[in-house]
Amino acid sequence: MKVTVVGLGLIGGSMAIDLRKAGLATSLIGIDQNPGHISKAIELGLVDKVLPENEAFATSDLIILAIPVNAIGAFLPSVLDAVNKNAIVIDAGSTKKMICQSVAGHSKRNQFVAAHPIAGTEYSGPESAFQGLFSDKTNIICERDKSSEKALAVATKIFEVLGMNTIFMEPEEHDKHVAYVSHLSHVSSFLLGQTVLDIEKDEKNIFDLAGSGFASTVRLAKSSPDMWTPIFEQNAEYLSQALLEYIMHLQKFQYHLQKRDAKELHKIMTKANGIRRVLEKS
Amino acid sequence: MKVTVVGLGLIGGSMAIDLRKAGLATSLIGIDQNPGHISKAIELGLVDKVLPENEAFATSDLIILAIPVNAIGAFLPSVLDAVNKNAIVIDAGSTKKMICQSVAGHSKRNQFVAAHPIAGTEYSGPESAFQGLFSDKTNIICERDKSSEKALAVATKIFEVLGMNTIFMEPEEHDKHVAYVSHLSHVSSFLLGQTVLDIEKDEKNIFDLAGSGFASTVRLAKSSPDMWTPIFEQNAEYLSQALLEYIMHLQKFQYHLQKRDAKELHKIMTKANGIRRVLEKS
Repeated sequence: MKVTVVGLGLIGGSMAIDLRKAGLATSLIGIDQNPGHISKAIELGLVDKVLPENEAFATSDLIILAIPVNAIGAFLPSVLDAVNKNAIVIDAGSTKKMICQSVAGHSKRNQFVAAHPIAGTEYSGPESAFQGLFSDKTNIICERDKSSEKALAVATKIFEVLGMNTIFMEPEEHDKHVAYVSHLSHVSSFLLGQTVLDIEKDEKNIFDLAGSGFASTVRLAKSSPDMWTPIFEQNAEYLSQALLEYIMHLQKFQYHLQKRDAKELHKIMTKANGIRRVLEKS
Repeated sequence: MKVTVVGLGLIGGSMAIDLRKAGLATSLIGIDQNPGHISKAIELGLVDKVLPENEAFATSDLIILAIPVNAIGAFLPSVLDAVNKNAIVIDAGSTKKMICQSVAGHSKRNQFVAAHPIAGTEYSGPESAFQGLFSDKTNIICERDKSSEKALAVATKIFEVLGMNTIFMEPEEHDKHVAYVSHLSHVSSFLLGQTVLDIEKDEKNIFDLAGSGFASTVRLAKSSPDMWTPIFEQNAEYLSQALLEYIMHLQKFQYHLQKRDAKELHKIMTKANGIRRVLEKS
């Protein structure tokens, strides 16, 4: 299968590695706005070569879009315009509503599969790609009924090869759930990082005092603003709601803290311990 | 050296393992309110035996207090009362001001070293203890001038054997810094856990959607409320201040999010990326 990967970062690069390894991708074309990423991806063997966009799209069996979500929405209609009638287009964006809307009326909508393989690290760029990133993780496909049977079959095969478990959801439902379970974690981490940086002007103290607990909680604050700004923008409604709930819980805690109400603090933490059930099963 | 460890949990148990391994503790006595913890600690070989408190204190060269911070403050004066004049007492509490105050006027104050070895995991109890927990971490000693030279020398040796780098601070300074760098992380994580549990009544969705980012950010929400309630209570003033700063940052972010102000969101995240400098050097 001739595969074009648009966006040679952590997600696109890691997919390329696994698809080639599985023998599914026999030829890999790379497209990226950043010329440095292209030469790095070729040097690392993530992709074989670069071609002009329209030539790549017209001659590929599968096109994977692994670029920021605003770029997917803007680019996807013209990608579908350019592909041949047997090609499949899959995206890997972390929001789904606006991306699905961008091709809602497109004549080749059924050649597109709207996906969100939930995997990643706080690193980005071709050097951050690695084999097995997606293994045992969950993939979400949205609007399955708008993709052709053939497109769904190819996409399902791809995500199987990546070792993922695919579930199906509507875009609104997807965006709401990931606001709480993924996007809110990122916001909480970014702002924990900022709060601590703001206060601890003397960074030496943070170096010394930061235990592994802090490092774990603040890890996502290292994530790429270029990638996350459009995700937050596109999911602003649900994320804003999640953030208000979070702030409300923090304010309640702060109220009990100021009152030194040990009983209430203990109760809140005991409830929060319930997250063990989730983490240990996931 | 004959060592008594009060509190046979993660901290006390892990200290016992390392001190025995290094040959520093030739005999280990365990004390714990929980009889199950004592028998488990003996079964695991963390300590050799149990003795009545006053007998243990009167006959030990070193007493380590690794119990919740409120219990340290309440118990420490009577421990100092009971020890012989050559013994050293070290605590491992995560707050220092109230603990230091509890023995400020004690006639044996100079036999006590107020310490905070910054290490831990989200687990507790004797089974969670392991060799090397403290290795390459930071230990803080407060009010060094109130401990005798001999007591400081013994404590320094102990923390060296644990593989820790010891720094010195006053209690107020200690409590303020750890409020931001350790305690706030725990609060942010506990309440992230609660927010997500509250909304995602259908836990199946969290299992499926929780990526490793969420798991990392919410890990500390599994921590023990029995241990953390007294820490938060004792450090309520500084933690409350840290929490208000954090809430203020979250509110600003939410404001820009609602306005879809991508530029501001990007700017905030780029600033937060500065935490990389801290994490990569620590």
